[in-house]
Amino acid sequence: MKIINFIINKTGARSFGIYRHDDIIDIGRHTGCHDINTFLSQHQLSDLSQYQSCSPDLKINDIQFLPVIDRPGKIFGVGMNYAQKRKEFNETEEAPTLFVRFADSQVGHNDMIIKPACSDQFDYEGELAIIIGQTARHIPEEQALSCVAGYSCYMDGSVRDWQYKWYTAGKNWPATGAFGPWLVTPDEIGDPQNLTIKTWLNDRLVQNDTTANMLHSIPQMIAYICTFTTLSPGDVIITGSPGGVGKSRVPPLFLHENDVIAVEIEKIGRLSNRVVGTLARSA
Amino acid sequence: MKIINFIINKTGARSFGIYRHDDIIDIGRHTGCHDINTFLSQHQLSDLSQYQSCSPDLKINDIQFLPVIDRPGKIFGVGMNYAQKRKEFNETEEAPTLFVRFADSQVGHNDMIIKPACSDQFDYEGELAIIIGQTARHIPEEQALSCVAGYSCYMDGSVRDWQYKWYTAGKNWPATGAFGPWLVTPDEIGDPQNLTIKTWLNDRLVQNDTTANMLHSIPQMIAYICTFTTLSPGDVIITGSPGGVGKSRVPPLFLHENDVIAVEIEKIGRLSNRVVGTLARSA
Repeated sequence: MKIINFIINKTGARSFGIYRHDDIIDIGRHTGCHDINTFLSQHQLSDLSQYQSCSPDLKINDIQFLPVIDRPGKIFGVGMNYAQKRKEFNETEEAPTLFVRFADSQVGHNDMIIKPACSDQFDYEGELAIIIGQTARHIPEEQALSCVAGYSCYMDGSVRDWQYKWYTAGKNWPATGAFGPWLVTPDEIGDPQNLTIKTWLNDRLVQNDTTANMLHSIPQMIAYICTFTTLSPGDVIITGSPGGVGKSRVPPLFLHENDVIAVEIEKIGRLSNRVVGTLARSA
Repeated sequence: MKIINFIINKTGARSFGIYRHDDIIDIGRHTGCHDINTFLSQHQLSDLSQYQSCSPDLKINDIQFLPVIDRPGKIFGVGMNYAQKRKEFNETEEAPTLFVRFADSQVGHNDMIIKPACSDQFDYEGELAIIIGQTARHIPEEQALSCVAGYSCYMDGSVRDWQYKWYTAGKNWPATGAFGPWLVTPDEIGDPQNLTIKTWLNDRLVQNDTTANMLHSIPQMIAYICTFTTLSPGDVIITGSPGGVGKSRVPPLFLHENDVIAVEIEKIGRLSNRVVGTLARSA
């Protein structure tokens, strides 16, 4: 199943649903629960399979995309997790490079990404996002994938001149993290360590790799994180970006107003966002 | 005013109130709002001054302390912010060293701090905590103190062998961040950059400094953070620890089961917590 989180254009109401060939089955209408964050904390996504054969309620043009999960309790970023990226940045530390994003830095598919006015080093990072489906603490690697509700694309926009070695200030500007277009359940993904991942800047292919080249696998990252903290339904792990980001290029290639940045992952789909400038002091 | 957040022993109900000479005026009882997180998002703490002359509802022995704010949306830690600490760790980076704590890593005054079983490098850090009272974005330094609801003590327990340069995994173990005993409003503090700060490990004075020795002042930290993200009522900034933490000593001095660690800040009070071991796989 593909699960999307959205606002209905006509009413402004929020809901979430099953996406199928540009049609949407509105799960909020069927269950009375319109909030994907709440639903994930109380149910399994597999509970939704009974609605898959329902008649569609909406067309894709009837909605605006929200971030796949718009209010995760915790968003962990794993930096320096692809072989080529590590080479480009001379990274030798073996422990997972963990930083935190806050939920208010996120936008959905097709929404505008905001380039901070005070930086000319706003960079793209295409990533595979994991959405947690079950409370997890001290889960061994071999059981870790059972905690995953699904997968999505993430554009982890990074303000390089504010990032430093602790990441926080470079990763939390409003509307710099794009998350979508939808969640794809594990049954449709198969092996999550065997997906091509590509990033396109204005139709130029700027990142092209496979999730096979991660240093820390998805089970390893889940097991590592839930050693020191509890992962809860709706929490998100963004699993690092391949080589080819703008900062590592000569000359550097950063994002500018009106650029379109897209992240495409095999079996998931394509997340696309336009970059806009900051109105004075608004972001 | 001193504001405490608590659970009432007899009923198990939560509330918050004004603390005065071991008496408590239960603000939940007077206003119907029993949740300090909700109250801060809707009101100013100065609205509570009308209740200061009420008869007390509870004695201090009638309650258990919760963290001063138990569900902050954002907790920012500022590492390497005291002159002596920077010297001990050879830190030369001038930008504020920002990391994130999650709310579920916190405990209140007198509660148990848990030493992770898998680490023998569990360290103390006594710190001044700032609690935000007003939504803040793009606030200049000279207006930043007007966003502060109050001050408290924080014991930013740090698992050094999981910390790395990005901090996240060392700062988020359950029950490693103690926050209390209460919030003190700015009118009782005067100049927050002129407070003595001391940490005691089993009655041995292990940190002893003044907030005058911060590299980045409180207004500078608030202005910096709200350049890249919104600060909201109830958000917390822990402002760094003086020199003398366990890792910088020869030999190192780490926390063990049954240790008592206390942080005392002038005009605020003394936060005290006992260290317990981890039951197998529980934390």
